[in-house]
Amino acid sequence: MRKPSEEITTTLARNIRRLRSNQGLSQEQLADKSGLHRTYIGAVERGERNISLSSLEVIASALCVDVPSLLSKPLE
Amino acid sequence: MRKPSEEITTTLARNIRRLRSNQGLSQEQLADKSGLHRTYIGAVERGERNISLSSLEVIASALCVDVPSLLSKPLE
Repeated sequence: MRKPSEEITTTLARNIRRLRSNQGLSQEQLADKSGLHRTYIGAVERGERNISLSSLEVIASALCVDVPSLLSKPLE
Repeated sequence: MRKPSEEITTTLARNIRRLRSNQGLSQEQLADKSGLHRTYIGAVERGERNISLSSLEVIASALCVDVPSLLSKPLE
């Protein structure tokens, strides 16, 4: 199976970790909010998954951002 | 399996069709450029697939845009 680039998985992972930390959420709390498993959230934050659009959507929604923001490099 | 929202699959489908047409590419030509199957491109353009990040990346690359642009509503 094809894998996403390290560039995009790293951007996604950093965005999720930053937004999650800023909102004071643990991986487990984000998992609960998004309906995904805690180990899956952990794998995405390590850039290990070829995530689907539906999972991107539930994570974005749980973090109160949209999907494009979750995949964009922060301006800072 | 969870499905992505109609809102995001519609946005994605419209963006792919618009960019592909503007560049004078058929579905088959986009399939060749991206290394995906023509029937898969067709299904994505009908909003029928829960596309993975790696497939979003190869389609974005073939259309010379980034993944966030492919998932964003056009300004017009």
